[in-house]
Amino acid sequence: MNRRKFFKNGSLLTLGTTLLHPFSSIANNIPYDKSKKNKRAKNIIMIVSDGMSIGTLTMADLYLSRKTGKCSNWLQLYKDNKVNRALMDMASASSIVTDSAAASSSWGGGVRINNGALNVSKKGEEHVPIWQKFKQAGKKAGCVTTVPITHATPAGFCINSKSRNAQEKIAEKYLEQKFDVMMGGGDKYFSPEKRKDKKDMYQAFASYGYEVVKTRNEMFSASINKPVLGVFEDNGLPYSIDRDNNKDLFQKVPTLAEMTKKAIDNMKNHPNGFVLQVEAGKVDWAAHGNDIAGLIYDQVAHDEAIGVAMDFAAQDEQTLVIITTDHGNANPGVIYGKEANDNFDSIQEYRHTNEWILTGIGKETSVSQIKERVHYANNFALTDEEAKLLLSYYNNFKTEEGLYNPKHLPFKTLAEIQQRHNSVGWISMQHSADYVELAMYGPGSHLLKPFIKNTDLHYLMLEAAEVENKF
Amino acid sequence: MNRRKFFKNGSLLTLGTTLLHPFSSIANNIPYDKSKKNKRAKNIIMIVSDGMSIGTLTMADLYLSRKTGKCSNWLQLYKDNKVNRALMDMASASSIVTDSAAASSSWGGGVRINNGALNVSKKGEEHVPIWQKFKQAGKKAGCVTTVPITHATPAGFCINSKSRNAQEKIAEKYLEQKFDVMMGGGDKYFSPEKRKDKKDMYQAFASYGYEVVKTRNEMFSASINKPVLGVFEDNGLPYSIDRDNNKDLFQKVPTLAEMTKKAIDNMKNHPNGFVLQVEAGKVDWAAHGNDIAGLIYDQVAHDEAIGVAMDFAAQDEQTLVIITTDHGNANPGVIYGKEANDNFDSIQEYRHTNEWILTGIGKETSVSQIKERVHYANNFALTDEEAKLLLSYYNNFKTEEGLYNPKHLPFKTLAEIQQRHNSVGWISMQHSADYVELAMYGPGSHLLKPFIKNTDLHYLMLEAAEVENKF
Ligand SMILES: [Zn+2]
Ligand SMILES: [Zn+2]
Repeated sequence: MNRRKFFKNGSLLTLGTTLLHPFSSIANNIPYDKSKKNKRAKNIIMIVSDGMSIGTLTMADLYLSRKTGKCSNWLQLYKDNKVNRALMDMASASSIVTDSAAASSSWGGGVRINNGALNVSKKGEEHVPIWQKFKQAGKKAGCVTTVPITHATPAGFCINSKSRNAQEKIAEKYLEQKFDVMMGGGDKYFSPEKRKDKKDMYQAFASYGYEVVKTRNEMFSASINKPVLGVFEDNGLPYSIDRDNNKDLFQKVPTLAEMTKKAIDNMKNHPNGFVLQVEAGKVDWAAHGNDIAGLIYDQVAHDEAIGVAMDFAAQDEQTLVIITTDHGNANPGVIYGKEANDNFDSIQEYRHTNEWILTGIGKETSVSQIKERVHYANNFALTDEEAKLLLSYYNNFKTEEGLYNPKHLPFKTLAEIQQRHNSVGWISMQHSADYVELAMYGPGSHLLKPFIKNTDLHYLMLEAAEVENKF
Repeated sequence: MNRRKFFKNGSLLTLGTTLLHPFSSIANNIPYDKSKKNKRAKNIIMIVSDGMSIGTLTMADLYLSRKTGKCSNWLQLYKDNKVNRALMDMASASSIVTDSAAASSSWGGGVRINNGALNVSKKGEEHVPIWQKFKQAGKKAGCVTTVPITHATPAGFCINSKSRNAQEKIAEKYLEQKFDVMMGGGDKYFSPEKRKDKKDMYQAFASYGYEVVKTRNEMFSASINKPVLGVFEDNGLPYSIDRDNNKDLFQKVPTLAEMTKKAIDNMKNHPNGFVLQVEAGKVDWAAHGNDIAGLIYDQVAHDEAIGVAMDFAAQDEQTLVIITTDHGNANPGVIYGKEANDNFDSIQEYRHTNEWILTGIGKETSVSQIKERVHYANNFALTDEEAKLLLSYYNNFKTEEGLYNPKHLPFKTLAEIQQRHNSVGWISMQHSADYVELAMYGPGSHLLKPFIKNTDLHYLMLEAAEVENKF
């Protein structure tokens, strides 16, 4: 049947829509691997945006589409029909709303455990983490993240720990397992000056043959013939938008995409292949802070890492790329209203995160200084009342340690004020139970069904790579 | 390669997971129609949950799974790998956040128009609605909904109108087009006592050969050899949970599933096939009211309509079933916390919606009566302060018409109080820009790509049914 015959609509607008409509070629309507079902995944790259509600994915895509005319890499893969997709139920053993430790453990250990633990069940049973399984199968294995490299999401693929909080100990466990590329933040868990036990973990990694890098340029020039430990910040890396607007941070800290590229370059020539976890960990932190500039620009940074992984995978043809999140967080969204478009587009003018705004205020700050700071960061004018409201939180602080603990700063109030200007709302400052979006490209992706449990992903990765589960 | 070899994990728990894991049979991993690509869709059933954020779908599925051990029909289709899925961008011509009129028009007319209109562009251009195209191609066409049958979502498939608000006029336009089954609420747009022009639209429909039914039993006994107009309520139908707990409403008003069944029975023997839109319209109203019992139980009613449609389609094998929503609304979700499971499960004990609670309160109501009413409906105890807070809204009402306009009732405050007991949060009382979930079953579903624009669906329906677009 002649398709033109269906669509001889006279109006130019409709004709345009018709010509551009996305199922014009049924022949193209075949995901990558439908014809390559039996191919083994030599490599796996799993790219996690931590705490990404569907609204976060939507807003990053809308932001990119409206600003640049080009949508996100993630959704371009959908438009090109290159992936298989699923919704995924991320519940933990203890709750329908998971934390990142139980979430990563469900993928990493193949078993649902309680929130807060890493591959250790309530009764103490330990589940072998999947990156250890792949190491034993002869592959290289690594993780890169924008939060401490000892944080829940990388740790859940790498080690066992009763508590996600034992990050100094987790740094030691990484070394025992000799993972090949580990990069992110977390100097306080490696540095002898900052660790409680005064151990110099950098020295320890170096003595095991690691190249230890602490700046972006050191990372670029690191040998690809040695394992790499990269630690670029005391705790989490700076938010992307803050980094991009601060010369010192820009020079010191690599992007998630740059770390991803380096990790791939380091491991890609290994004859038995490699596995890599890439985490945009600060998307979650931004959601916890209802911090829209942190959220969108770090989701964009995640998307650039997808671009790097796909550039490699499309050429390599032996790499399973898994793109997902571990849970929703705060369920942000653009809210209906006459000014919704303009308000949402105003985020394009933002220069800094709410974290940057709020950590730069103290009780000594004046109302006019607060107004100036918000105007510089967000390009809108606070009222005097709004500035006074923000300032009031600082006057109530105790002068003890923890003075500027982010949890005490008025993130919620600032987000409520911003909502009148950017039309973005949030349900809370915590994770949500929403089923999450999951996409796969490459060999093994045909194994994915449209709805899975988090633990299914553990077995899918092993099956895609044909790695025996002998543990 | 032997799968057992991959998965010989010793732990019973893990073994269970393995045996149940969802990609155990690659042979089963093929959506319905992959082998039937070239089959024409004789019939189309499109089932819309209006204003369904992904959290709404998640919560209805969690509610059913936890209460009955059986998940929603919608997600069971995913687990059985019977559908193709997409994310869909529902933006209108005027906004990244659509209203239901522009949303339905994008599907119905194939063109994005401004919020508020029905298949009429800003410059006045009219786009032929898709159910008219199918009527001209010889099919029967109908709509059933839980809101007025003249409301935006059915109207967008059926007629042209500069304004969605012209519902009396829309009732007349339905008659001009002679749609075959139209059922829902909206007596005030049909009744001579209630219409401004005093026209008796029931009489007008009857004189055109329609069977007019106003109760559930009349609907059940209506002939399947005549077109049917069913109007069961002044405005929208009652929320499912309120209907189920009120004997009079239960007897008077059919469920969405029952209307769906009747509509299919009426049209299924037509030699040229039929098209049917099914709308769970009050899911949107519940989201606008942050009314969790309205939301979840009406989403479950939507899910039961999916069951009816699938029972027919699975046997018929010539029916394209499209399951989706027209936009997010309020982005509700279960929020992280120690009590999240128990709190969420407490919704199983709810007897009534927040609308039922709040429309039963007046300024004469006492604090103890409010506490009693909430305890009866929600099975938790308000504090005196909370009851007084609710009551304070009523004391501020003017005594004019519109006294109990739902927009003035303290829906937001009640939802905030409930959140401490049920852990459900909301970003607003309005639509959101989130890309939405879309699933298709049956002939034509292979045309779906993983990401589409709303307008693409118009052309997909025509192409699936091989109906020429000669307008
Ligand atoms: Zn978190
Ligand atoms: Zn609405």
